[in-house]
Amino acid sequence: MCRWAAYVGAPIFLEEIVSRPGHSLIHQSHCATQCHTAINADGFGVAWYGERPEPGLYRDVMPAWSDPNLRSLTAQVKSGLFLAHVRASTGTATSRNNCHPFTVGRWSFMHNGQIGGYEAFRRDADMMIRDDLYPHRKGATDSEALFLIALAEGLEDDPQGALERAAARVIALARAKGAAPHLRLTAALSDGARLYAVRYSTDALAPTLYHRWSDRRQGRAVVSEPLEQDEGDWTEVPAGSFCTFEGRDVQVSAFLPEAVSAAA
Amino acid sequence: MCRWAAYVGAPIFLEEIVSRPGHSLIHQSHCATQCHTAINADGFGVAWYGERPEPGLYRDVMPAWSDPNLRSLTAQVKSGLFLAHVRASTGTATSRNNCHPFTVGRWSFMHNGQIGGYEAFRRDADMMIRDDLYPHRKGATDSEALFLIALAEGLEDDPQGALERAAARVIALARAKGAAPHLRLTAALSDGARLYAVRYSTDALAPTLYHRWSDRRQGRAVVSEPLEQDEGDWTEVPAGSFCTFEGRDVQVSAFLPEAVSAAA
Amino acid sequence: MCRWAAYVGAPIFLEEIVSRPGHSLIHQSHCATQCHTAINADGFGVAWYGERPEPGLYRDVMPAWSDPNLRSLTAQVKSGLFLAHVRASTGTATSRNNCHPFTVGRWSFMHNGQIGGYEAFRRDADMMIRDDLYPHRKGATDSEALFLIALAEGLEDDPQGALERAAARVIALARAKGAAPHLRLTAALSDGARLYAVRYSTDALAPTLYHRWSDRRQGRAVVSEPLEQDEGDWTEVPAGSFCTFEGRDVQVSAFLPEAVSAAA
Amino acid sequence: MCRWAAYVGAPIFLEEIVSRPGHSLIHQSHCATQCHTAINADGFGVAWYGERPEPGLYRDVMPAWSDPNLRSLTAQVKSGLFLAHVRASTGTATSRNNCHPFTVGRWSFMHNGQIGGYEAFRRDADMMIRDDLYPHRKGATDSEALFLIALAEGLEDDPQGALERAAARVIALARAKGAAPHLRLTAALSDGARLYAVRYSTDALAPTLYHRWSDRRQGRAVVSEPLEQDEGDWTEVPAGSFCTFEGRDVQVSAFLPEAVSAAA
Repeated sequence: MCRWAAYVGAPIFLEEIVSRPGHSLIHQSHCATQCHTAINADGFGVAWYGERPEPGLYRDVMPAWSDPNLRSLTAQVKSGLFLAHVRASTGTATSRNNCHPFTVGRWSFMHNGQIGGYEAFRRDADMMIRDDLYPHRKGATDSEALFLIALAEGLEDDPQGALERAAARVIALARAKGAAPHLRLTAALSDGARLYAVRYSTDALAPTLYHRWSDRRQGRAVVSEPLEQDEGDWTEVPAGSFCTFEGRDVQVSAFLPEAVSAAA
Repeated sequence: MCRWAAYVGAPIFLEEIVSRPGHSLIHQSHCATQCHTAINADGFGVAWYGERPEPGLYRDVMPAWSDPNLRSLTAQVKSGLFLAHVRASTGTATSRNNCHPFTVGRWSFMHNGQIGGYEAFRRDADMMIRDDLYPHRKGATDSEALFLIALAEGLEDDPQGALERAAARVIALARAKGAAPHLRLTAALSDGARLYAVRYSTDALAPTLYHRWSDRRQGRAVVSEPLEQDEGDWTEVPAGSFCTFEGRDVQVSAFLPEAVSAAA
Repeated sequence: MCRWAAYVGAPIFLEEIVSRPGHSLIHQSHCATQCHTAINADGFGVAWYGERPEPGLYRDVMPAWSDPNLRSLTAQVKSGLFLAHVRASTGTATSRNNCHPFTVGRWSFMHNGQIGGYEAFRRDADMMIRDDLYPHRKGATDSEALFLIALAEGLEDDPQGALERAAARVIALARAKGAAPHLRLTAALSDGARLYAVRYSTDALAPTLYHRWSDRRQGRAVVSEPLEQDEGDWTEVPAGSFCTFEGRDVQVSAFLPEAVSAAA
Repeated sequence: MCRWAAYVGAPIFLEEIVSRPGHSLIHQSHCATQCHTAINADGFGVAWYGERPEPGLYRDVMPAWSDPNLRSLTAQVKSGLFLAHVRASTGTATSRNNCHPFTVGRWSFMHNGQIGGYEAFRRDADMMIRDDLYPHRKGATDSEALFLIALAEGLEDDPQGALERAAARVIALARAKGAAPHLRLTAALSDGARLYAVRYSTDALAPTLYHRWSDRRQGRAVVSEPLEQDEGDWTEVPAGSFCTFEGRDVQVSAFLPEAVSAAA
């Protein structure tokens, strides 16, 4: 089922989000509370933006709780925009290329959810990936495929529209060849300038999504589950939303892949 | 906390114990029910006896549930005596050399439990390992140290006595420099001819141990937790016991490290 | 560039081919002498047939020389038909799913060589994989794709014809979108009953292939490089050959993908 | 045999030393030219100093050339003082805890060379490690042991003296229980303020050591082998030297463990 956490704001050590809070992402890798599986131990990854346009990326197949490399990295690296993820596989093998986040150029993407019945139409999904982006298709997950389809749909110019169009395409596939729920999509993505997140499902069970501004840090955490039990001021994002986080601002609009399908 | 399962009898595929039962060892790697941690995902290992005097050994740091190598190996390899283990670390790093079982020559050993406060006297424990056995000290676990100490105490000639003497020595260390509970020891070991198991603790919480003869298989499973929920005929081994399993026979005697200490 | 070794005959320990000879496969993983790269350290794998129709499979990303699991496995497992491979990547990532051999059902396949300019048309190659076989497309190598294309072309009924047709298809792709040499193919495959091998290239540099019957073992080794320097009686397979090994027999016929292309 | 490279000066991306030069450290992991083994593929590691007193540490068992994590990390992380190492094992297992550099608190250490016949007296070497430092003994290498012995000998106050005393102790051990050459020691170490290096051997074959100031970078590289073939201005450090690098300065003094032994 996966859990993830992202941050945008003044640069902080990655560990401020990944490992130090009481219910940090690493804590959620073995004790998640708001999803089907408490355990998210099929690998992890972190993508962070620094001086380069493209982000750094560190992914491995170990449970996040047991990796000293991750602990060291998150204690040393500071960033003003980063994505971190712990994985619970929905079927695909445990390998580095199947861990999130995925990166292409300046873009990074991570996902909690799945495309329903995906293994029955993985080939069709792969075929939806544009030719020049196929070299970036390194693993076999539905998440990586969705990301590459969205890139071709114009993530660069219109992130929300591109993701709606990509979601519509995979929903149609899942309807034709897969299974319900056709798409559960709580995801985060970034080009290094802004952080985006979406919370959506074709059924009533969109995986959770929260965010919270920290005056102390001068930044915002965007997460699957609140990082501290006793912090009551996490804002829950409603299902069917696309969020844009930039500096202190939050913009939320309705996320409507069905409108795309209807128009098509 | 770890979970383990062993078998002695007519040769069967390893998977008959490791993965196929409803509450198999692999199931226990994420859903253990009779120990402190449901999750035992800090590595796994299997040692099996075949045509050679020394056993085969396959260990890795992945959670057992996600390793296709393990699945393939257990589906292909048949053995009349094998040990399998899934690990929950009690402090030491996740690495192959810290996974159980451990093997030296014909002997194999795996352990569920710990030596209390071990990290405070690991050096003393290492110093108890006899010089000629030190090349076999490859990791940093208390379990591997205990095994090597027991080997020097005469495992070859008197497995129970050797293990009692080794247990007495580490208990004394834990009393002097460590913490209570000084020793929890539910372990299995073998020389390829017989399977031995011990269930012991200095406190009242000796980790669980069961066994069951299968007429169908013509062999006996010795386990941390029964492999099927609905099989009511698993025999529970009392705390403070040393068992010898050979063919159909089971011999149980009182396991008394304290007697050794008292004598010393 | 890769190196591989296979065996068919009376059951022997895998190590008799994989590690014990003077110029064993493990030796070739760091000191190969008949190929472009002396080092083949981007992973390894072994597939072996035993009691099941489908083979066992053990693959990992470590250099073969440093894996104690491989050493143990090959010392313990006996088989009358097995394939072993050490990898030098021609571009694709180092991951377990990119290691050879590949297995589907009863079939196993390993490859030394490449499809020229493959990364430019990987998507086209993936699209050649039949829908129902796509779940078996787990990695991103040209070798795995070729194997899956050959399966759909009828490996089951006509191994040579199927492989010729598959080769013809990828050669056409490489001619259209890739680079010369369009295909170098020294491969071994098996259904558990017979061992097949092919030595072919569109240019003059088909990777090497030898075989040798051993009276002592009552079996035949089929290899990239002879396993002992001083054994002068290895038979070199001419380029453009397809071999069938069964028991003591060897049948060699001309391997002609171009004939397929011409006919098409 | 190992190869390593260190840097001290104005902050640069780690890749400027680790991967970008023509004969970078990663190049040396498969094509080293000045040591016994061209291949150094038994793991790698990098320790870098940033905002914290203690360094970051990333180590893994893959060959350095095939790890995308390393490539990403070195492209993103900038540091004014770092150590990087590629390993060729002299006997001990390939595991993360046996990779260099090693770190304790602010100190980092990496080594090219060995203690002669070490496996015969590993226990004695472990016994030389002071009790309170033993928790840092995570692996089984001679290098890690030497580092921990040196720490206890006063690395904090007198790095050269401490390393001479530690070297003297292990040389004595090797003379008594091991083999010649008793010690080959080309190592680098740092406390985050200064970079130190030593080139020493009990025989005539001290592993190579060079350094070079770069005006462009405003920093100094200290290496096993020059990073570019055509740069003729690398300074070779004579055998029997201890170097202190700080800012632009280089101080070189005679490294004399024998004097310590004689005095003892």
